[in-house]
Amino acid sequence: MARLKPLAKPAFPDMKPIEGVSLATAECGVAYKGRTDLMLAELDKGTQIAGVFTRSLTASAPVKWCREILPGGKVRAIVVNAGNANAFTGRAGDEIVRATAKRAAEVIGCREKEVFVASTGVIGTPFSPKLIPGKIATLHRRAKPSAWNEAAAAIMTTDSVPKGMVRTAQIGDATVTINGIGKGTQMIHPDLATTLNFLSTDAKIPAPILQRMLKDAADKSFNCITIEGDTSTSDSLFLCATGKARHKRVSEFRDPALKDFKRALEEVCTGLSQAIVRDAEDASRFVTLHVTGAASTRAARTIGRTIASATLFKVSMAEMLPPWGRMIMAVGKSGERAERDRLNIDVGGIPVAREGAVTDGYDAAAVTAHLKGSEIELSIDVGVGRGKATVWTSDRSKGYG
Amino acid sequence: MARLKPLAKPAFPDMKPIEGVSLATAECGVAYKGRTDLMLAELDKGTQIAGVFTRSLTASAPVKWCREILPGGKVRAIVVNAGNANAFTGRAGDEIVRATAKRAAEVIGCREKEVFVASTGVIGTPFSPKLIPGKIATLHRRAKPSAWNEAAAAIMTTDSVPKGMVRTAQIGDATVTINGIGKGTQMIHPDLATTLNFLSTDAKIPAPILQRMLKDAADKSFNCITIEGDTSTSDSLFLCATGKARHKRVSEFRDPALKDFKRALEEVCTGLSQAIVRDAEDASRFVTLHVTGAASTRAARTIGRTIASATLFKVSMAEMLPPWGRMIMAVGKSGERAERDRLNIDVGGIPVAREGAVTDGYDAAAVTAHLKGSEIELSIDVGVGRGKATVWTSDRSKGYG
Repeated sequence: MARLKPLAKPAFPDMKPIEGVSLATAECGVAYKGRTDLMLAELDKGTQIAGVFTRSLTASAPVKWCREILPGGKVRAIVVNAGNANAFTGRAGDEIVRATAKRAAEVIGCREKEVFVASTGVIGTPFSPKLIPGKIATLHRRAKPSAWNEAAAAIMTTDSVPKGMVRTAQIGDATVTINGIGKGTQMIHPDLATTLNFLSTDAKIPAPILQRMLKDAADKSFNCITIEGDTSTSDSLFLCATGKARHKRVSEFRDPALKDFKRALEEVCTGLSQAIVRDAEDASRFVTLHVTGAASTRAARTIGRTIASATLFKVSMAEMLPPWGRMIMAVGKSGERAERDRLNIDVGGIPVAREGAVTDGYDAAAVTAHLKGSEIELSIDVGVGRGKATVWTSDRSKGYG
Repeated sequence: MARLKPLAKPAFPDMKPIEGVSLATAECGVAYKGRTDLMLAELDKGTQIAGVFTRSLTASAPVKWCREILPGGKVRAIVVNAGNANAFTGRAGDEIVRATAKRAAEVIGCREKEVFVASTGVIGTPFSPKLIPGKIATLHRRAKPSAWNEAAAAIMTTDSVPKGMVRTAQIGDATVTINGIGKGTQMIHPDLATTLNFLSTDAKIPAPILQRMLKDAADKSFNCITIEGDTSTSDSLFLCATGKARHKRVSEFRDPALKDFKRALEEVCTGLSQAIVRDAEDASRFVTLHVTGAASTRAARTIGRTIASATLFKVSMAEMLPPWGRMIMAVGKSGERAERDRLNIDVGGIPVAREGAVTDGYDAAAVTAHLKGSEIELSIDVGVGRGKATVWTSDRSKGYG
């Protein structure tokens, strides 16, 4: 485990079992020694699954497999290893995934297409196809309902803390729970990368509805964080619903009974994604950036992500420099519409630019004091419409490498 | 002038006068003290102009003005200042540009729409509208035909060397010359940025043909370099043709008589753009990346630029780490088609990956030796078509800030 990073929050939430989910961890030694690096989540029959994966066109072998089987909507196992991403490993990489699915299906008694696989770590390094399948029977024997912290620790790479988030929600008369664990920081050694997140709930929601809700929640959370702007080959987000809760049948996405669940799901996703930013390599400041006045929600998000991933913006945050020049630069680069003479910018709630130019006599002392803090709040209005979004990022200090 | 950077080449070429062009420099003191920071190029009547500008949607006031007057195709003056980009300066910024054009038109005796303006430096800092216009008469008196080195020095910001490039070409029986000067490194102080390049020739070529040739040359040179991936509000590239050379009339872009001129123009643009990469802040390695097998030329360039600007790729170059994992990551992020199982990568001419996986027993010692050098050569074939491109970038070391 990496040394505790300055913004990372070490407290792991008190996560109760989710009926229908059991977990186990082991040491398979693909890359690490003396630590767990393999996790199995077993799900009861009938569990529905939704998934969101990297948009990379050179996705890893596990992502390729998961994309293929996701339309089935059913899951009995998720196998995750840390230390090797099984990406750029050619056909040998595909064979490792198939062997893992085959072995888990045998041991658990399910179909191969109900076994999801995720990997994180180095890219382009082959490893023995026996290591992961060889541990599945052990994992199956060890599986228990309340090993969330251990599971979160087993999937870490350069993370300094295991990451968990829990929320409850009402669906009709029933209280359901969403447990989420995740990992991710940044690439600091050659090709160590990737965000993996595994959410589960006892709610009873069919896969197609689950999928739409997860996509929506991911757009407002995982798709609103950026560390260095580089897209992993392996990002995977899963939501499993065991259906053990006793609530009325939910049959469509717009069902008002799902409103509270959607809120809870978004909170779990936002919490995990913010925990990833706080554990980013080299982060000393947590930056919240609100974009308003964009042509659409999508446009606002694109503008926000372009600013938040711009090298020179991130360096300005680390160096406590006024960031507006670099924010304007990034707005112009984003390709989204903005009205030059209607741009407004606030730093820590202090107006610093109005109508396309820096405000005469803005409160420079207050701005400087805010930029010296570790929690930075920025707002930019681009003056063309009603689209808005919030994104989160970290700074990048001089020591970055 | 910044301290000489390790890859920068201090020798300035022997640049002869171009008939119909005269140059002058002065200290206008917008931002710097004790150095020249203002340049005027005067062009004889009948000079044709082509221009390529930043794609930024929040472009500076000078870029806005130049875009507006470029369709006229005629130029009598170019005024360039360093130290302040006149970007994010609201309507006051537009007024400075108009006052500059008005004053130059008065002094030189031409139309305002024949006066081009370019600015580079800090963003979002107002300055007195009198500073630049107040120096135009002095510049006009000083103008002389052979001040290329002084002109290149006056437009520098964080450049450690003035940048010049010269080539001759045959058009029919006549030998014509292209002189080019440029500036650009990267943003290292708040919002210092921008690439400006000013090319002139005595060739007699109408503006519409000049424009197409300049666009083509820029696509293969300035659009193939990247430092940190951030787009300036102010990038401007001009090509002025005074028409003083005595060659046969050129009436279309495809005229075979232009072949050698196109070659020379591309060489000048490539030379200046590579000089910018060599003078990049923090550069200790010059990286040439060849992309082949892409769906189109445009796709190859997109893939190349995505790899070359990826933070983690640049850090791997600085740290002499095997770069292929990060190259694959960036290919996947580029959005362009690639065939995972047909990807080939060479490092310094040494095959390190074939058909989508790292080559067993590649010559690791030779690869390491190449990565320790200061001139890195990488090739990637993405296995889908015949599109190819070459891009140039620098590394980003631990000291980056």
